[in-house]
Amino acid sequence: MAGSRFAYVRSFELPDPVLPGVFMVVRIDGKGFHGFSQAHEFEKPNDAVALELMNHAARHVCQELRGDVTLAFGESDEYSFLLKKSCKLYNRRESKIVTHIVSLFTSAYVFYWPQYFPKKALQGPPSFDGRLVVYPGVQEVKDYFAWRQADTHINNLYNTTFWSLVLLSNPPLSERQAHETLKGTVSSQKNEILFSKFAINYERLPAMFRKGTTVVLAPTRPSSKVRKSKRRKAHPRELRTLHVDIIGSAFWEEPEAGAKAA
Amino acid sequence: MAGSRFAYVRSFELPDPVLPGVFMVVRIDGKGFHGFSQAHEFEKPNDAVALELMNHAARHVCQELRGDVTLAFGESDEYSFLLKKSCKLYNRRESKIVTHIVSLFTSAYVFYWPQYFPKKALQGPPSFDGRLVVYPGVQEVKDYFAWRQADTHINNLYNTTFWSLVLLSNPPLSERQAHETLKGTVSSQKNEILFSKFAINYERLPAMFRKGTTVVLAPTRPSSKVRKSKRRKAHPRELRTLHVDIIGSAFWEEPEAGAKAA
Amino acid sequence: MAGSRFAYVRSFELPDPVLPGVFMVVRIDGKGFHGFSQAHEFEKPNDAVALELMNHAARHVCQELRGDVTLAFGESDEYSFLLKKSCKLYNRRESKIVTHIVSLFTSAYVFYWPQYFPKKALQGPPSFDGRLVVYPGVQEVKDYFAWRQADTHINNLYNTTFWSLVLLSNPPLSERQAHETLKGTVSSQKNEILFSKFAINYERLPAMFRKGTTVVLAPTRPSSKVRKSKRRKAHPRELRTLHVDIIGSAFWEEPEAGAKAA
Amino acid sequence: MAGSRFAYVRSFELPDPVLPGVFMVVRIDGKGFHGFSQAHEFEKPNDAVALELMNHAARHVCQELRGDVTLAFGESDEYSFLLKKSCKLYNRRESKIVTHIVSLFTSAYVFYWPQYFPKKALQGPPSFDGRLVVYPGVQEVKDYFAWRQADTHINNLYNTTFWSLVLLSNPPLSERQAHETLKGTVSSQKNEILFSKFAINYERLPAMFRKGTTVVLAPTRPSSKVRKSKRRKAHPRELRTLHVDIIGSAFWEEPEAGAKAA
Repeated sequence: MAGSRFAYVRSFELPDPVLPGVFMVVRIDGKGFHGFSQAHEFEKPNDAVALELMNHAARHVCQELRGDVTLAFGESDEYSFLLKKSCKLYNRRESKIVTHIVSLFTSAYVFYWPQYFPKKALQGPPSFDGRLVVYPGVQEVKDYFAWRQADTHINNLYNTTFWSLVLLSNPPLSERQAHETLKGTVSSQKNEILFSKFAINYERLPAMFRKGTTVVLAPTRPSSKVRKSKRRKAHPRELRTLHVDIIGSAFWEEPEAGAKAA
Repeated sequence: MAGSRFAYVRSFELPDPVLPGVFMVVRIDGKGFHGFSQAHEFEKPNDAVALELMNHAARHVCQELRGDVTLAFGESDEYSFLLKKSCKLYNRRESKIVTHIVSLFTSAYVFYWPQYFPKKALQGPPSFDGRLVVYPGVQEVKDYFAWRQADTHINNLYNTTFWSLVLLSNPPLSERQAHETLKGTVSSQKNEILFSKFAINYERLPAMFRKGTTVVLAPTRPSSKVRKSKRRKAHPRELRTLHVDIIGSAFWEEPEAGAKAA
Repeated sequence: MAGSRFAYVRSFELPDPVLPGVFMVVRIDGKGFHGFSQAHEFEKPNDAVALELMNHAARHVCQELRGDVTLAFGESDEYSFLLKKSCKLYNRRESKIVTHIVSLFTSAYVFYWPQYFPKKALQGPPSFDGRLVVYPGVQEVKDYFAWRQADTHINNLYNTTFWSLVLLSNPPLSERQAHETLKGTVSSQKNEILFSKFAINYERLPAMFRKGTTVVLAPTRPSSKVRKSKRRKAHPRELRTLHVDIIGSAFWEEPEAGAKAA
Repeated sequence: MAGSRFAYVRSFELPDPVLPGVFMVVRIDGKGFHGFSQAHEFEKPNDAVALELMNHAARHVCQELRGDVTLAFGESDEYSFLLKKSCKLYNRRESKIVTHIVSLFTSAYVFYWPQYFPKKALQGPPSFDGRLVVYPGVQEVKDYFAWRQADTHINNLYNTTFWSLVLLSNPPLSERQAHETLKGTVSSQKNEILFSKFAINYERLPAMFRKGTTVVLAPTRPSSKVRKSKRRKAHPRELRTLHVDIIGSAFWEEPEAGAKAA
């Protein structure tokens, strides 16, 4: 065969299976989204529409890899996807799994952009990168997502206070001045600044900003119609988009908690 | 800090550096492009516009990672990117490199779709996967690309003959009959079928179909204007899109041969 | 510095940390021990002295890596060592861990040989190889050791019957004839052959042959003297060498079950 | 089969092939040899007999893996083994290669100890660890060995001067005083101390101490007898133990230079 004398190069493709019996988390991050969000004039500190587009892209991943991805959590320009322990996708080949998830997400982000920003053209192709991390047990999975949600809280409280200082102060503060003002402050002080200076009650801000977004595959809530049907599938499941507390045990005891689906 | 008791989960992120001093090739493949090309009514056996879109996406990758990606080769729904030996991109972290390239390609593919198919809406987000393979020496790099181009030739000759039998025969052949006809035939026989039955001289078909597409970063051919300028940069380089023979030594002796840029 | 221009070669030493939070098992195997056991005229089917030497070498490993290795199991010319989940030995660098265990075992095997075979000189340096396998949970660890003990049983029943046929039959059988005789037989048939032909009750054979050897680090059984002492360490532990059933839950509920020490 | 329900644990044994087409270097190091050399009263700064035992152990590795290991270099309590590019040993499984080399070396070290120290009993089992490093090209291999030999020189010059100060000074210096004396000195100053204070011409010290030991597989120097023989094998090769300069090109141009055997 014409190509056979070159086929030896295939021997350089080494196997890269992920260990069986462990959870996998794929986390993706926007590349250069600081500049990207400026170029597209995203609102500060949070652009709700841009976040909803991220959530849509995440749901696309969850939908396409339904049965393997059981939970996703996103904030800002990052999203994490949990794959169940018994996942056999691409025979657990690491590069296949991580690249396909990044590609699905990227593709959906660009594809659905016009639906979310009908009057704002995308100026160029945005991109993401990703990594795959393995967690042996349910506790570590919970702690991973708690870590991301704690990060959401810390960043959002800082950013909310920072941009309030910059945008709402009278006279306005420069970004440098705002950073100086916040240097060394703890959470309670930031809450106090927000409340006393700008009459903002942080806890009343949209939950999506404060708690990020959790996408889960949960049992369908049966409508009366479906309930009567005898032919419906045993366990229909649907994607749900939540903005709830996932630190602590309450969330994980709900049927939608993905880690149990192992 | 709020998140510190969860931060231990970071210790599960293991390092994944690629060996220094070796070439890296990232190959991406379309996922489910058989169905995708049917859904979008791509021409058989080759859709020139769809291939040009692939090439555009590849040039986007080459442009964004200019200085690291020195050569790319594509055919059908796959593309391979060569990273030079001394590449330090993301400190050679494997998952970062491979996911970012797949993301850049996917994003450009969706972003530039309307420019190539102004009258044909994308029906959903297409996706790709990727892998990174390491080659120690120049010879292996040449043989890798020779392997892909040999594959292009074999597939294209088969597909061209197959679709000629299906689309141009009188009476038309079913796909099954066409497969039967071609079973066990060698190249010369397929050439003969094309020529005797359909008056197609395979060698005269577009080079892009027969030889795939090679994108290289090559020295700019100076115009007389530029030549006179004293202020132009020492070694300006530009992307060139070629449809040439890359099996054999001639190509690699040209200044645009990327493997030398190690 | 004299060596500094060569020091770049260190960059080729890639990190190889084992995932945190999982059990590690290092299994070592004798290289060419079929020939080695013939050359040293080991008894067939089991040489109790040679097995005791293996056990001694294993205890040396357990002793040297006390606190990290919590359980070991051996049969024939192989031994498996369990390292606890939280093990931090060599920062969990895989090659360090696996090579050091193989080296400790090999060294002890050669060093203690004269103590076990005072009248039989070692004819040359024996060698072993090893691998490290990762298990995420306690159940998989138990099943790993169950797998090795089941293997011990299967091999020993076969070998015992085989060598009885060869050595005790009258007239004696050739090895080929013995293999033929056993082809396709199940356990009960081999038990029957042993009992009816050679009056051997398999279950009465030494437990070390039938169940292999388990080395555990267990709490010291306090003597009355120690019990009275107020200054003894809180949890003194000592190595114990057992020939017991480790398939099933009973063993693992004992305090010496290493997997709990995670 | 009895063990079949546990056999799934084998799926946790992941493949670990080394990339094809690259050189492999396995470096082993003594564990705790500082204490070991004190316990066995090795001469300071170098114990020629102990080094010869290391060399013997290295030759055992080279002999056993003849055809795969083409060069070895040792100093102090470390030894490096070069495996040729095309090496197929254990299908290039990393853990098999590195553990077997460490085991062969350890075994030979203990086995041959009495031959080198007939009057000094080994007090316990010594041990080593090892790692495998991959080098893509001949230049990097040469630089690796140059790096080790430069290290030999630096360490030996320091140690020779240090122990001269401690053992030969009148009145004797403490180890702390000797360290202080040498702090910040360059090579020429150490040479000067050796010469002026102790009449030691460093360059006249045994080459094994200054240049380490190189073991190569070289073509047999034919005796006149063999030359006449018509039946001798085409390319008989024998191990040679050298104490020569391997930094610089001269050594590598000799037929015994292992890297060429790729």
